[in-house]
Amino acid sequence: MPSIDIGSLSLEQKASLLSGADMWSTHPLPEAGLPEVMLYDGPHGLRYLQDRGDTADIYGSTPSTCFPPAVAVGASWDPAVAAQIGAALGREARALGVHVVLGPGVNIKRSPLCGRNFEYYSEDPLLSGVLGAAHVRALQEEGPGASVKHFAANNQETERTRISADVDERTLREIYLPAFERVVTEARPATVMAAYNKVNGVYATQNRWLLTEVLRREWGFAGTVISDWGAVHDRVAALAAGLDLEMPGDGGAGAARIVAAVRAGELDEALVDAAVARIVELTGRVAPATGGLDVDGGHALARKLAAECVVLLKNDAEVLPLDGVTRLAVIGAFATAPRFQGGGSSRVNPTRVDAALDAIEKHAADRGQSVAYAQGFTADGSDDARALRAQAVEVASAAEVAVVFAGLSDHQESEGYDRESLDLPAEQVALIRAVAQASPRTVVVLSHGGVVSLEGWHDDVDAVLDGGLLGQAGGAALADVLFGVVNPSGRLAETIPLRLQDNPSYLNFPGEAGHVRYGEGVMVGYRYYTSAERAVRYPFGHGLSYTTFATGDLTVTATGDDTARASVTVTNTGSRAGKHVVQLYVATSAGKVRRPARELRAFTKVALEPGESRTVAFDLDRRAFAYYDITRSRWVVAPGEYRIQIGADAHRVLHESAINLIGDKGLTPLTLESTVGDWLDHPIAGPALLKKMKEHMQGMTEQEAELAAQHPDGLRMAAALPMSKLIAFTGDTFPADFLDELIRVSRAA
Amino acid sequence: MPSIDIGSLSLEQKASLLSGADMWSTHPLPEAGLPEVMLYDGPHGLRYLQDRGDTADIYGSTPSTCFPPAVAVGASWDPAVAAQIGAALGREARALGVHVVLGPGVNIKRSPLCGRNFEYYSEDPLLSGVLGAAHVRALQEEGPGASVKHFAANNQETERTRISADVDERTLREIYLPAFERVVTEARPATVMAAYNKVNGVYATQNRWLLTEVLRREWGFAGTVISDWGAVHDRVAALAAGLDLEMPGDGGAGAARIVAAVRAGELDEALVDAAVARIVELTGRVAPATGGLDVDGGHALARKLAAECVVLLKNDAEVLPLDGVTRLAVIGAFATAPRFQGGGSSRVNPTRVDAALDAIEKHAADRGQSVAYAQGFTADGSDDARALRAQAVEVASAAEVAVVFAGLSDHQESEGYDRESLDLPAEQVALIRAVAQASPRTVVVLSHGGVVSLEGWHDDVDAVLDGGLLGQAGGAALADVLFGVVNPSGRLAETIPLRLQDNPSYLNFPGEAGHVRYGEGVMVGYRYYTSAERAVRYPFGHGLSYTTFATGDLTVTATGDDTARASVTVTNTGSRAGKHVVQLYVATSAGKVRRPARELRAFTKVALEPGESRTVAFDLDRRAFAYYDITRSRWVVAPGEYRIQIGADAHRVLHESAINLIGDKGLTPLTLESTVGDWLDHPIAGPALLKKMKEHMQGMTEQEAELAAQHPDGLRMAAALPMSKLIAFTGDTFPADFLDELIRVSRAA
Repeated sequence: MPSIDIGSLSLEQKASLLSGADMWSTHPLPEAGLPEVMLYDGPHGLRYLQDRGDTADIYGSTPSTCFPPAVAVGASWDPAVAAQIGAALGREARALGVHVVLGPGVNIKRSPLCGRNFEYYSEDPLLSGVLGAAHVRALQEEGPGASVKHFAANNQETERTRISADVDERTLREIYLPAFERVVTEARPATVMAAYNKVNGVYATQNRWLLTEVLRREWGFAGTVISDWGAVHDRVAALAAGLDLEMPGDGGAGAARIVAAVRAGELDEALVDAAVARIVELTGRVAPATGGLDVDGGHALARKLAAECVVLLKNDAEVLPLDGVTRLAVIGAFATAPRFQGGGSSRVNPTRVDAALDAIEKHAADRGQSVAYAQGFTADGSDDARALRAQAVEVASAAEVAVVFAGLSDHQESEGYDRESLDLPAEQVALIRAVAQASPRTVVVLSHGGVVSLEGWHDDVDAVLDGGLLGQAGGAALADVLFGVVNPSGRLAETIPLRLQDNPSYLNFPGEAGHVRYGEGVMVGYRYYTSAERAVRYPFGHGLSYTTFATGDLTVTATGDDTARASVTVTNTGSRAGKHVVQLYVATSAGKVRRPARELRAFTKVALEPGESRTVAFDLDRRAFAYYDITRSRWVVAPGEYRIQIGADAHRVLHESAINLIGDKGLTPLTLESTVGDWLDHPIAGPALLKKMKEHMQGMTEQEAELAAQHPDGLRMAAALPMSKLIAFTGDTFPADFLDELIRVSRAA
Repeated sequence: MPSIDIGSLSLEQKASLLSGADMWSTHPLPEAGLPEVMLYDGPHGLRYLQDRGDTADIYGSTPSTCFPPAVAVGASWDPAVAAQIGAALGREARALGVHVVLGPGVNIKRSPLCGRNFEYYSEDPLLSGVLGAAHVRALQEEGPGASVKHFAANNQETERTRISADVDERTLREIYLPAFERVVTEARPATVMAAYNKVNGVYATQNRWLLTEVLRREWGFAGTVISDWGAVHDRVAALAAGLDLEMPGDGGAGAARIVAAVRAGELDEALVDAAVARIVELTGRVAPATGGLDVDGGHALARKLAAECVVLLKNDAEVLPLDGVTRLAVIGAFATAPRFQGGGSSRVNPTRVDAALDAIEKHAADRGQSVAYAQGFTADGSDDARALRAQAVEVASAAEVAVVFAGLSDHQESEGYDRESLDLPAEQVALIRAVAQASPRTVVVLSHGGVVSLEGWHDDVDAVLDGGLLGQAGGAALADVLFGVVNPSGRLAETIPLRLQDNPSYLNFPGEAGHVRYGEGVMVGYRYYTSAERAVRYPFGHGLSYTTFATGDLTVTATGDDTARASVTVTNTGSRAGKHVVQLYVATSAGKVRRPARELRAFTKVALEPGESRTVAFDLDRRAFAYYDITRSRWVVAPGEYRIQIGADAHRVLHESAINLIGDKGLTPLTLESTVGDWLDHPIAGPALLKKMKEHMQGMTEQEAELAAQHPDGLRMAAALPMSKLIAFTGDTFPADFLDELIRVSRAA
């Protein structure tokens, strides 16, 4: 850790440290012994640029390993996969002399249309947070720092630099912040990157609630807050809100404004000092480039990890693996020119790229199988689709199994813009249907960053292997899975809906007039589909294996007023070794807010040999049961019943066991503005009030009593009135001193 | 109009006028010649209470005619029906000495669960506004004043006295306010009633934006704003916000607070004077009771109008009308004890009540038909459902057609609480299914205030007649329609969804923690179902007839930059006289906001003899094409294409004709915070900027140009950047004076 006397620095020197020197580094202060910090893009490979001033050239970076992007890692459901990528990135960063690797991105996939979804893990905050924390922890153990991003509610590319994400606080707390919270509190990232967008009207880079109250005070973040590149609009406001480092460099303009604001008494110099202290601490990550990038090791690791991320969506009649097939057809341009990463700042210049066809031919040769190839389509839709399709049909007709490599091309999704549809290109849909008709068996392999629709062809094919984007060795990894060298164990980290229109954000995405309303609240992804009982193509958590698993013996016990322990036994009942993801959901209607039908609260991936059994246990802390209560500004575990569910996926519950939790004590205090219903519900005031009401009714005339009995809805109507109004409407039935005493007693409770 | 020198009144006298004297009247000021104003509940009948201090007895009112509630009037799609009810209420009010009749309610049916939906017209603001304005105009022409309510966004009963309706301004302007706006601007109601709830955190009664800025300043409302009963929480804040009269009386507490606030200099006495002037003007409505309520005339009118409101949802094989049937079975408790009004403050003590069975027996006797009756179920679910069902099946088996009167009971829906489901009681569903199996033909007649689900039995029956709630003569009116004495002409004013879960407010209703988020924005009712292409059971606007109609010859011409005229010919192609509702929708994607798939912009009900044709014309003003632009705080007609559609209902377009409108001139001015895309879109700055960019690209190295060409997504990414950031990232490519000049020129445009 560099030790520096900040008090010895001039205001100008200090201010200079708070903006970048150029695109990729901080200002050094050699006279004070402070080196420059080099920050470069991740998150799944290093985009290290020799020319440090270059802004426009986002393609000419130094070669490095392109690991599976987050879309794939999310589908692994395996923090060990995230950790191995983090560690490898840490090693490559050290080799290149990079001190902070920008990533991981833990934003929630609110809409499947978001162009940057491939850089994010999941629609679920627990899965995102666990994977993000594993990545950060492993990366930082290698030396360099991480930068968890994009903080926060940066869930679209359209208008991303100025749109206001209008999100209520419960939704922020339960959906959009928890992944950041987990990464910050569990993995202590060196930096957090403030996003481009506004959150409820205030730029994230200038949002004091977000950067200081929540991030620093509540979560205890002690690292450096940096801006997304170009996200600062008012340097002084950003500093006051808690943003330490503006990136990239702005030629000294920001520093000049900071100096002027301090001189004018508009900015407390103590804030400058605090930010400088954090930059100084960040320089502790600086180390010279060690060189010696391990190209072969990186590539082999990328292949191994990619295979862990593949999701077998469908496998009718066990057409996969391709072990016993003699004549194979491989079809589709992505088999030779794989789509393996997304566009934008995360684009890596890969050290090499594996084409699936090459790997398939190797596996086939080992097994004495023949492979014929047809291009089928072009990624950019050029050339004669009809002729390419005809060739493909001919090749498919001669094979026992046709494997079609379909997906989205580079230009159909990227950082910077959102998609407008979930559809595969029409010529690919036509190709798949034609091949499926011509071939005895058809397997579709999908490559894409965001969810693609399977409608129009799903029922025509026998198997679907979903690769997302798998990084530079993805082609080989897909071949490994196709041939059963690796047993697929991925699970969907994002629902595949039947129609785009079914997505809960459909009519509120990407917003308008500078605002995007998060109208669906906490009902994001499977939380919506399950709560609204809406059918989907494949649910969150879905994924098949070449073997079979059975779970059972679910036991759940409360371990406190607001905690529990669950255990379940999982057995490999098939004939191949494989990995199973145990998914634990909690379902409840406890509390005064609308709860999703169920929420993922724990998961683990278990590797089992054929016949092997293992019992896994989960300790569920209070957050597994809590909701965020905006009326009390805190997490609350409501007393009541909680159903612990083991799900095959988010829609299919295999086992359920209910427990009753005592939950949080402490009642909402009564006031005269509480409704009559609130009063009657109160354990102390309620019975006393009811007694008084009954006394009053005994004083009714016979006619009044009869009318009241005939109309119980009158009582129900009264329950919604504030007590102050019941008093006003009923004269001296409820004397003030009687109610005051009840209020006093209820507060003491 | 009373003429009074307000300046001669003491502050105490003036303040006394601003709260009620008791439950139902204002304070008189005899010394100044000011009488008391008597205000009593409507909206579809008078709830006049002899005992003026009585609060609890909401059932013992003086008998008066119970006209069809708004749920039925909405289904008439006929302002003449609303007007006749308004006029009749005006006459009854004069007879009883009532000076202000509380109603109509023009709130939008956001959720089908709202317990008070029976008091509202529709899920569509145009239909609600046209009917409400007709009601108010006709009522006030008789002398008494109306009170349009509940202003505003009072769309649920749960927590209604304190919940905050959190609604964005575009949604308020386009959905929740326009019906009020139309009533206020076209019919000039004597009073507007401020609602219980909060709107965006501020009680409606204390919401200055709502009561003063929008209602008085923008809409020019000159009448009296009164509170819903007990809706004022801070009398001084309410007065300052624009609320004139607090109801009911509060024993002088409010007046004392007003006096104290003026004396303390916290409240401008001019506000008191202005409110007093409005109360004085309201006393102009005072007139002595004329007596002589026309019981027979009122009942006959109620019967005639009720028949106009019945919606024939389904009529397979023309089972209706019942002309040629010999043996009829009538089944269901509602045939003898009709459900015809809702619970709560609108509950009328009817002058008489028609049972459908009696009227059916008369019609059948005239035609020589036999009628057998079985109770089938009890409204409250008591007694042995199985035995009642068995009897009903026996009766149905012996008939050619069984008519089942089903629906919701009094206690299942009311003011004061919301429903939790759309289901008919299970014993009624079982009864319908059993009868449908036993009877050759089955007709179901529904009585209900809120939408009920038809699932579980719809496909089993031959015809469905939807009565909603039809008022005291509804039973006879239903018989008139069943026998073809009246040809049904109602149309659904509210979508019947397949499932409650399909409603766009489903997961945001009725809110939590003091807030209800209007997350669906403008996508309310059919606007959602059509925009999300979601299947429904019966769409908004649906309704059959005993005759058939053809429409054609749609012609549309622009009559200005932002107005148009459409005409269409409608022909009765069947053999009975009947009425057809011509529904004109506008569909567009013009403008920078998400537009609903289509919106009702004009309608008319046409009576036609068999073979008769008529051409109807609609003048579409600019609001028919406009959206509310929050960035400019005004209505905007965007240049572009507008498709004028004649719909059989909201989902089925019969004819369409597109026009291009010039729309509003005036472009959003460019700034350096406008995105590069905004700049490029600008008709003047765009081409100049593009030229500059091309010059820049000509200066690229060959390698740079090649990379740029390979990656068009780079340009798309740049389009989302604020211009200030493009400048920062590209050095001196775009000099400041060049951009300043473009900004200057673009503003002048």
